[in-house]
Amino acid sequence: MIYLDHNATTPLHPRVAEAMKKFLDQNLSDSNKQDFGNPSSIHGSGRSARSLVEDARENLAKCLSVHPTEIVFTSGGTEANNLALFGAVASGKLSGRHLVVSSFEHPSVLEVFHKLENENWEVTWILPNSDGIVEVEAVEKALRPDTALVSLMAANNEVGTVQPIQKVGQLLKSRGTLFHCDAVQAFGKIPEVFPKVWNVDYMTVSAHKINGPKGMGALYLRKGAPMAGLNLGGSQERSFRGGTENILGIVGFGKACEIALKIQDSRIEGKDLAQLRDELQKLLKEKIPDLIVNGENVSRLPGTLHVTMPHSRGDLMVMSLDMQGIAVSAGSACASGSVKYSHVVLSMGKGKDAAASSLRFSLGLGNSRSQLPLIAEK
Amino acid sequence: MIYLDHNATTPLHPRVAEAMKKFLDQNLSDSNKQDFGNPSSIHGSGRSARSLVEDARENLAKCLSVHPTEIVFTSGGTEANNLALFGAVASGKLSGRHLVVSSFEHPSVLEVFHKLENENWEVTWILPNSDGIVEVEAVEKALRPDTALVSLMAANNEVGTVQPIQKVGQLLKSRGTLFHCDAVQAFGKIPEVFPKVWNVDYMTVSAHKINGPKGMGALYLRKGAPMAGLNLGGSQERSFRGGTENILGIVGFGKACEIALKIQDSRIEGKDLAQLRDELQKLLKEKIPDLIVNGENVSRLPGTLHVTMPHSRGDLMVMSLDMQGIAVSAGSACASGSVKYSHVVLSMGKGKDAAASSLRFSLGLGNSRSQLPLIAEK
Repeated sequence: MIYLDHNATTPLHPRVAEAMKKFLDQNLSDSNKQDFGNPSSIHGSGRSARSLVEDARENLAKCLSVHPTEIVFTSGGTEANNLALFGAVASGKLSGRHLVVSSFEHPSVLEVFHKLENENWEVTWILPNSDGIVEVEAVEKALRPDTALVSLMAANNEVGTVQPIQKVGQLLKSRGTLFHCDAVQAFGKIPEVFPKVWNVDYMTVSAHKINGPKGMGALYLRKGAPMAGLNLGGSQERSFRGGTENILGIVGFGKACEIALKIQDSRIEGKDLAQLRDELQKLLKEKIPDLIVNGENVSRLPGTLHVTMPHSRGDLMVMSLDMQGIAVSAGSACASGSVKYSHVVLSMGKGKDAAASSLRFSLGLGNSRSQLPLIAEK
Repeated sequence: MIYLDHNATTPLHPRVAEAMKKFLDQNLSDSNKQDFGNPSSIHGSGRSARSLVEDARENLAKCLSVHPTEIVFTSGGTEANNLALFGAVASGKLSGRHLVVSSFEHPSVLEVFHKLENENWEVTWILPNSDGIVEVEAVEKALRPDTALVSLMAANNEVGTVQPIQKVGQLLKSRGTLFHCDAVQAFGKIPEVFPKVWNVDYMTVSAHKINGPKGMGALYLRKGAPMAGLNLGGSQERSFRGGTENILGIVGFGKACEIALKIQDSRIEGKDLAQLRDELQKLLKEKIPDLIVNGENVSRLPGTLHVTMPHSRGDLMVMSLDMQGIAVSAGSACASGSVKYSHVVLSMGKGKDAAASSLRFSLGLGNSRSQLPLIAEK
């Protein structure tokens, strides 16, 4: 099988799997080292578990160049997005009733804003341009004196376009407006995803997009940023997120961060991936003359290639490629007979035909040059 | 080390760890079987992951004797309690503004009710009797024509007392009042934790209390029970709980359920544990003549022994036993100099002295008869 759906989820890095297996071995009642305790317990087994959680927190904090106390572990990116936005609102400390968000965010951001809109928050939805970029000018135009918070993703999950977060951050900082950034797709893929450099107050990251485990994520919460916990019932994560910690997931996330940090330092993998992606793009263009590459002329995630193939159907191509052992995803998903068009492609003003005939190739760990001709062939 | 804190968390069952390690091996980019896909993806890798999730759901459903579609996987018991209660309220379908809950619930239930009380829901708090039992008559007395929902745990986490859930369920069913039951401590420890037999509409269970992984739980949600999802952003778990599934955790939970089901069928382990507990109780009584065993005369979880040792301090005993390699927990926790007394012991009318001098021994996998004299010695 050739897996080209790394923006949906990634395989585990072998060293992440190894660290997690080691931890599992220490979780048995007869293990030499007993790490199975509850981190909230004061006895040795609890303290041992606690230190594993804090080690992972430090790894993540280093990756983001923030203080470990600014990290709140969650059960994934979706929960972190929900926590950032609902939590900021629930704090009762927002400076106004107006919010700004782009129209091509992940559903876990969009649905929160739809709910807030129903609860009488005023929301301005910004469209990206046809290249898949939300322009700083568009954000500026949407701002009002009572704008309390802006939410914008660092890189789009479908087209892979990288957004001008730092510039938006500068703009918002000068006005004292809070800034949430969903960095799930950018974190670990582009260098220096640094909330403090970007002037971001809340930043969402996820483990399973960077070869870590599923069901694990985190929210960077700037010290002093308004927040009320949502998952009530324990003082875990400084009371912002109750519940016994998913230590195995945290251990895996911590190891994935450690690896990502090294990659970031050496900046090798990103370049390799971009080269691989560019080659695949070239091969596909040769094969399909009327192929449209979305976001081709703007900054994109190194591994993402999003194309529109006129007169084809994305969902059928996904199924056909799947039968040939190639895993990709489409801009449209056909569920129980009704076609749901990609809100991302539609928001870029491309129309339903383009949405229905789009395909996303997302490369990552395990992909190699030798696979490319095979992919283009099919 | 002798671990006697199984009500806080448990070691992994060797077969749970084995299943999880096997899954980790299938999560690498070069694995033979590639189970690392996103269950929401329609390609083979996604479908393979999906089937693992559904297998585990069936195992849990069998344990609870419910339909698999009535299971919502969550990141743990705390989230399941939050989802049950906040979700029921957020559905907008409750029949009145009055709620009833016991005073000795887990913090993840108590804090939700405190928040609801602040949001102008009327809450009646019921005290357990001095044996640690919430009497059916006390529930009945608290009910009003506008009572929409009652929440009562199946077994208390500190004293281990088993509550008359089935009788309360009968009472509430006859009046059409919704019933939430936090069964985190009872599930897998006492036989036939069956929400349909108990007439429970929402039931919380957790993996890490039954030798499964931490960060994993579920809510039984009776078909048709009022509910609105809280973690927005995906159609996972029938839209009641968005976010890519923690498949590794789900696989471990499924295996733990499979094992629990066998234990339940044979009813061996519970008996063994109760015998072990009773022996420890006898030894401690011989050693400490003025020892008070809380809940001694009522139905208790097989592995739980909760004692008050007049003139001792629980927190100091925990630390002293820890240094001698024995992990237990206290009815009081000393955090940064200020003593926080157990709300459970206080709610039983025992007073602060009793709360400060209480100790919980909770037995489980890995404990054996040979450890008992050693424990009593110290």
